Amino acid sequence: MNTDRIYTAALLVIGDEILSGRTADKNIAAVAGWLGVQGIRLVEARVVPDVRDPIVEAVNALRHGHDYLFTTGGIGPTHDDITVDAIAAALGVPVEVHPDARRILEDYYATRGGITQARLRMARVPQGATLIENRMSGAPGIRHGNIYIMAGVPHIAQMMMEALTGTLPGGKRVLSRTIGGWVPESEVADLLAATERAHAGVQIGSYPFFKQGRVGANFVVRSTEEDRLEACAADLFETLKALGHEVVAEQV
Amino acid sequence: MNTDRIYTAALLVIGDEILSGRTADKNIAAVAGWLGVQGIRLVEARVVPDVRDPIVEAVNALRHGHDYLFTTGGIGPTHDDITVDAIAAALGVPVEVHPDARRILEDYYATRGGITQARLRMARVPQGATLIENRMSGAPGIRHGNIYIMAGVPHIAQMMMEALTGTLPGGKRVLSRTIGGWVPESEVADLLAATERAHAGVQIGSYPFFKQGRVGANFVVRSTEEDRLEACAADLFETLKALGHEVVAEQV
Repeated sequence: MNTDRIYTAALLVIGDEILSGRTADKNIAAVAGWLGVQGIRLVEARVVPDVRDPIVEAVNALRHGHDYLFTTGGIGPTHDDITVDAIAAALGVPVEVHPDARRILEDYYATRGGITQARLRMARVPQGATLIENRMSGAPGIRHGNIYIMAGVPHIAQMMMEALTGTLPGGKRVLSRTIGGWVPESEVADLLAATERAHAGVQIGSYPFFKQGRVGANFVVRSTEEDRLEACAADLFETLKALGHEVVAEQV
Repeated sequence: MNTDRIYTAALLVIGDEILSGRTADKNIAAVAGWLGVQGIRLVEARVVPDVRDPIVEAVNALRHGHDYLFTTGGIGPTHDDITVDAIAAALGVPVEVHPDARRILEDYYATRGGITQARLRMARVPQGATLIENRMSGAPGIRHGNIYIMAGVPHIAQMMMEALTGTLPGGKRVLSRTIGGWVPESEVADLLAATERAHAGVQIGSYPFFKQGRVGANFVVRSTEEDRLEACAADLFETLKALGHEVVAEQV
């Protein structure tokens, strides 16, 4: 469904392990990249601890004003997995055991020691929810309205994204071209701004780096319109080369 | 300054490149881990694009209610670096060129092509700010009240954290012990909850993983009190072993 409407999403990452620095989050980048392919723009991400009130507050702040709210983390079987309860509280609905989730878990654990109360925790959903398939480890993700509740373990979250791929209404994809060069961004700042101004509907981001003792930057040109994107990228590339900068039409 | 008061911080990551999925954020984990050593708890992180209103809104939401607000990103010389302007707007103060920052940049660029208007952008601060040293690339970080404005490039941000190390009032450090095992967390969920309940002032987090085709979990015991931490970790470790689980007193 390609329309001119811009579809936006927010992501809520739930987990003490991210805020303690123990675990480096991988879900923001993965969800962001995947959403881009769906024609949906991630416009805000938040990280909150495994604590009810901050989750409730963030869910209620983020579920309005965006087409989608995705969450990762806190849907396992242990006492610190409180995402479902907190989201139900945010929505003002009770928590119930979803019959399909129960069946999925009973099947999954049939050869793995059988279902238990702890494992049944993973069948609990905010009332009115549907399930997101998890081919990896049984316990499904959960959809309630525009909220998509996914696992925190990155490759399980990835499985859930794959199950959702192609099912979410989105708009035009943001396309990008990267021009990389061994050039200090401060030398070409005016050029970047002027090039962006000269090409309507295109944005240029500048991302400096330091590698092998040298200073450089990647200039990322973004647009939903391929012709505008290519025209701007070509303009920037040729101008940088004409000024004697060592650049390549790809990321350095 | 070790007191019983809990010091909290929020982190605002500013950058389109994170929300597009182009760049995986590394600053949340780095800032979180560094803050932990300073006795300061990171209790919320947000990621916003290089767009003025979302930055202003997030700064005003996060600078109150926490002892510290750190930001990363958007303080370079290019047109998409708008962090200083947005934070000044949030604070309701004008932007001015900081004389020390100007001198630092003039010195730094003396042998690198000289100062330019674009480079002078990096001397602009919200009125009333002081500087955070950057031994890496000249352009300093900025402090204004309880807001600490740092670079987005991870190892420049790291340099700024090092410059701040030991200067920020903090409380007791949160200590942790990790017990790892090839055990599905759903098998020990009740045990984890009971162990946490039995040890006041201690929290247990459970982080599942899938490696080498096997299911396991790391159980992270956290407390500001070393004796309580050790007692709880020993209790959990011995109980897991007594139940026949294959565990080690470290991360798997």
